[in-house]
Amino acid sequence: MAEAGWQATVLTLFPEMFPGPLGASLAGKSLKEGIWSLKTLDIRQFARDKHRTVDDVPLGGGVGMVLKPDVVAAALDEVSAAPGPRIYLTPRGRPLDQPLARQLAEGDGAVFLCGRYEGVDQRVIDAAQMLEVSIGDYILSGGEMAALTVLDAVVRLLPGVIGKEESHREESFETGLLEPSLYTHPRNWNGIEAPEILASGHHQKIAEWRLEEAKKETRTRRPDLWQRYLQGQGPDNKAKE
Amino acid sequence: MAEAGWQATVLTLFPEMFPGPLGASLAGKSLKEGIWSLKTLDIRQFARDKHRTVDDVPLGGGVGMVLKPDVVAAALDEVSAAPGPRIYLTPRGRPLDQPLARQLAEGDGAVFLCGRYEGVDQRVIDAAQMLEVSIGDYILSGGEMAALTVLDAVVRLLPGVIGKEESHREESFETGLLEPSLYTHPRNWNGIEAPEILASGHHQKIAEWRLEEAKKETRTRRPDLWQRYLQGQGPDNKAKE
Repeated sequence: MAEAGWQATVLTLFPEMFPGPLGASLAGKSLKEGIWSLKTLDIRQFARDKHRTVDDVPLGGGVGMVLKPDVVAAALDEVSAAPGPRIYLTPRGRPLDQPLARQLAEGDGAVFLCGRYEGVDQRVIDAAQMLEVSIGDYILSGGEMAALTVLDAVVRLLPGVIGKEESHREESFETGLLEPSLYTHPRNWNGIEAPEILASGHHQKIAEWRLEEAKKETRTRRPDLWQRYLQGQGPDNKAKE
Repeated sequence: MAEAGWQATVLTLFPEMFPGPLGASLAGKSLKEGIWSLKTLDIRQFARDKHRTVDDVPLGGGVGMVLKPDVVAAALDEVSAAPGPRIYLTPRGRPLDQPLARQLAEGDGAVFLCGRYEGVDQRVIDAAQMLEVSIGDYILSGGEMAALTVLDAVVRLLPGVIGKEESHREESFETGLLEPSLYTHPRNWNGIEAPEILASGHHQKIAEWRLEEAKKETRTRRPDLWQRYLQGQGPDNKAKE
């Protein structure tokens, strides 16, 4: 059976969580159309003892359980032919951002290892040279939600999933600024007017206003992104701010 | 029917995406036990015309569609009795972190507004004084995955969802350092030894080694967190680094 499109392979103790929310809307439609495919493997099937043990206590003591390196290695071996980087979802990983999502979307697929309990023995992560990825500075109950989130960010970038027009949006995000506020009809809603410039019909002035809004919002809401934006502008442009 | 526990209320165009992955594992078990509850409302039911229109073109031009303020306001009105902050999921929002997850978990619930298309008219977000939250610097196909992610981070913090022991883990994360690497049996896996100190039985030395590991990993992997950690330490402690 030939598999077409971008190939997602997921190693998890909870295969029933997939495709989950990605089975609906545009992600679900493109999954049915074969723009991407999803294969899940239950890590538990790679346990070697009759109790199907996948975890053990942390060496050196401490709370929780750690996924065993031999079990995880056997699961990774099983999918050795699957395309793309081996991604381990962990709060210690490289933060997911739009360039990483785009880079993944430009490849042939990815293999996701979803940890549970405390995490995975670091030796197998290192030996398999996995790419450690974090979706944010918070703790989830496992890697599954993180894998779904990475997939959502990636799938919408695959050719044919959303229209060409919509795809301009990322270009805007990739300037390093937050987006300007959005407004639609009615112009007067509940006594609140939308910004007058938006009804002016002056495309150039509207574009300028939106850029200023994006800068203002970024400066106010995310000083960290704003500093990075200024640095990316270089000294000449920085002086103009 | 009395609703008990932490109350999640979700406004979405895709109610079928919920509880999705949160229906399994510990989140699913605690949902069944009533530790938290989940109510979804389809935003489309608040459309006023016979075509059930929920969106319109952006004022001032541009790609995509914007959720109408009157429709969203009607949906918010419908759930005015639901407890907790009104959260709008958007890449422009305050980044989700562990303190915010904890703050939400300590409340009675939250109402989540999931945007689709380009987003939501800013006037209704501002008028309802919504808390804008981002799960990371990347673009998703809608707010649903972000709401599920916030819920996953929150639900595991609710009393009774995970054991008391496990909950020590966040305290570690909340020091502002990444966690040290984890290891389990066998001590020699595939010719690779786990760090020898972990088999020493010296609890104090193991704790010190783990702290140094956490510092090293944070410095190497996340210079941004490391800088914040140093600043939080104050000048006296900083000198000791």
